[in-house]
Amino acid sequence: MTPDPFAFRLLRTDGGARLGEFETPHGVVRTPAFMPVGTQGAVKGTLFKDLEDAGAEIILGNTYHLHLRPGDDLIARRGGLHRFIGWDRPILTDSGGYQVFSLAERCKITEDGAEFQSHLDGSKRHLTPESAVDIQTRLGSDIAMVLDECLAYPATREEAAVSMQRSVRWAGRCRSRLELLRSTRVPNVVVSNSGQAQFGIVQGGVFPDLRRESADATMAIGFEGYALGGLSVGEPIDLMYEIVGETARRLPVGQPRYLMGAGTPEDLVECVARGIDMFDCVLPTRNARNGQLFTSQGRLNIRNARFAEDDNPPDPECGCYTCRRHSRAYLRHLHLSGEMTAAALNTLHNLTFYLDTMRRIREAIAFGTFDTFRQEFLRSVSRPAHDS
Amino acid sequence: MTPDPFAFRLLRTDGGARLGEFETPHGVVRTPAFMPVGTQGAVKGTLFKDLEDAGAEIILGNTYHLHLRPGDDLIARRGGLHRFIGWDRPILTDSGGYQVFSLAERCKITEDGAEFQSHLDGSKRHLTPESAVDIQTRLGSDIAMVLDECLAYPATREEAAVSMQRSVRWAGRCRSRLELLRSTRVPNVVVSNSGQAQFGIVQGGVFPDLRRESADATMAIGFEGYALGGLSVGEPIDLMYEIVGETARRLPVGQPRYLMGAGTPEDLVECVARGIDMFDCVLPTRNARNGQLFTSQGRLNIRNARFAEDDNPPDPECGCYTCRRHSRAYLRHLHLSGEMTAAALNTLHNLTFYLDTMRRIREAIAFGTFDTFRQEFLRSVSRPAHDS
Repeated sequence: MTPDPFAFRLLRTDGGARLGEFETPHGVVRTPAFMPVGTQGAVKGTLFKDLEDAGAEIILGNTYHLHLRPGDDLIARRGGLHRFIGWDRPILTDSGGYQVFSLAERCKITEDGAEFQSHLDGSKRHLTPESAVDIQTRLGSDIAMVLDECLAYPATREEAAVSMQRSVRWAGRCRSRLELLRSTRVPNVVVSNSGQAQFGIVQGGVFPDLRRESADATMAIGFEGYALGGLSVGEPIDLMYEIVGETARRLPVGQPRYLMGAGTPEDLVECVARGIDMFDCVLPTRNARNGQLFTSQGRLNIRNARFAEDDNPPDPECGCYTCRRHSRAYLRHLHLSGEMTAAALNTLHNLTFYLDTMRRIREAIAFGTFDTFRQEFLRSVSRPAHDS
Repeated sequence: MTPDPFAFRLLRTDGGARLGEFETPHGVVRTPAFMPVGTQGAVKGTLFKDLEDAGAEIILGNTYHLHLRPGDDLIARRGGLHRFIGWDRPILTDSGGYQVFSLAERCKITEDGAEFQSHLDGSKRHLTPESAVDIQTRLGSDIAMVLDECLAYPATREEAAVSMQRSVRWAGRCRSRLELLRSTRVPNVVVSNSGQAQFGIVQGGVFPDLRRESADATMAIGFEGYALGGLSVGEPIDLMYEIVGETARRLPVGQPRYLMGAGTPEDLVECVARGIDMFDCVLPTRNARNGQLFTSQGRLNIRNARFAEDDNPPDPECGCYTCRRHSRAYLRHLHLSGEMTAAALNTLHNLTFYLDTMRRIREAIAFGTFDTFRQEFLRSVSRPAHDS
């Protein structure tokens, strides 16, 4: 079974920023794209219909969570992740590695892979490059990620080098496994992987030469797209931007570049400027539940007493349901009252703001005005009007 | 300022069941009607747009909660409850009495009213018949309820009689206060009460003669509608139905009858058969959060292991968003994973089921087929298919 070609089309560039689109078995995704995080098969606090209305063209699913509960076997028997969760647009799944390293208990890494205990029931589990591929094949995502080792920041150059080289070897095993699955029917891998793309991940910490080595070795294996891992983990922001820019420049022009786990609205704009095409981040959803709203005028903490009698919408420039219908005073009341509707309304706004930012980025690139957009955007969102 | 007449139109009867409608400053409500409970200014787990889509024509707001947080003064300054919460359809507010008796601390009842401490911050509060009217006037609800004393079940005949007679005296004070407000502008009651209707409440426990006495005395005061209080609090179901039937028959034909706090889907149908026009209940929303779904085939506990691989919608006969898009297997997974989206999807279904039941009741009365509907409905929802 030969997979459908994962066609990435680069439509236009504006400085380092790129306008593009790619095709998946579940439709086209326009880039630069933001992927809301649907950890356990739901984007926390939202219904899919509202996510679609907000303009989400692709979401991310977490392999670690779904593998543990309800299990990729069960999901495969339901016809794959799309059918199981009722989301018919593209899905990218991570490899599970990041969660194994950050959430699981008694995690032990060897050349073979990771041994760990489930944080849910303590059961012993294995995650290898091969099983990470198999699980994602059973999930039937449109884009699968290779298993990589996730290094904590800060790490020494030596630690980063050893870890990066292992990640490269794992990437090779992931690719081999996928190629085997593409050419053979493997027992217990019941969902067809036809059309599933696989992205490699560039590691190397904050060391430019290691990043270069990782990029070159990962490109030599060959993937449908390339991700930058191990960033946005606590390193200084300027250092992150520098690494992103240098790494992105080294990657193939004709394939998408995905910065994993980033970031703030400012990060999205700054990293698009440096050649990134795809993002995912829990900030808009997690911060919404904590009462923090991202707006065209900067961040706003809805708990703040100054909003108690504020009849304005959260963001006067936003057209989302929350901003069309509700005031800051009401959202503050709901949040302080512990109503889950507060989380739902805040999430809907934050995701709309992120997805709208991506739409505005794409429009600016299309019109060749990205740099002007970037400057105005950074000036407006960094206003300390609300959080001071 | 003379209020707009609260016009209840009785359109058709079918046995004891009544088809009607009434007008409020925020539009028409068709009866029999179910009012989703919006305790703190939100119907838990939903967005208003979905509630509107599900067919909710009126919601209930809790005076006790809103008085304590964010405060009726603040809400009045925001332009009243409708504007504050962004709901433009009719709202009924309770008097706060039930919550004072059940939630507040150190509650002491005298002839004057209730003294209690807020369950939120321990602050000392007063609720009198007059202040209950004032608060609801500040909230600007379409229908206000009189303050009554809520007796626990079981109570002796003597206790029920003493309590009922006090509730009648309080009802008289509530009516006098409203008439004063209708004819004068009272300082600090800043929201216009133009058009606000006021309902009396019939008490008397499970004692038919006390219910009769209460109904007669409450009608003698004269209200735009009449509620039955102190039912659905633990008494045997047949006794409740009997009291409902006897009390409803005694109330004026040309005014709406509201059974407070009830009930199950079966209760709605059985009490419509006995002449009730309005209901409110937390069951559809609260049980949804606990994973219990009301369906055309009876109740379904989504945690049940039998649903782990069930690809059917929660209710095959339901057209709600949840049932159109999601399976029992997915809802079970979300519920067990603690995702708030589970509560949202379950709530949307349960409220749709309740509101659809009311729509079907109204259609059956209109076509003169209510008794057939009632028999078929009770047969289908009492099937033990899922919970056995």
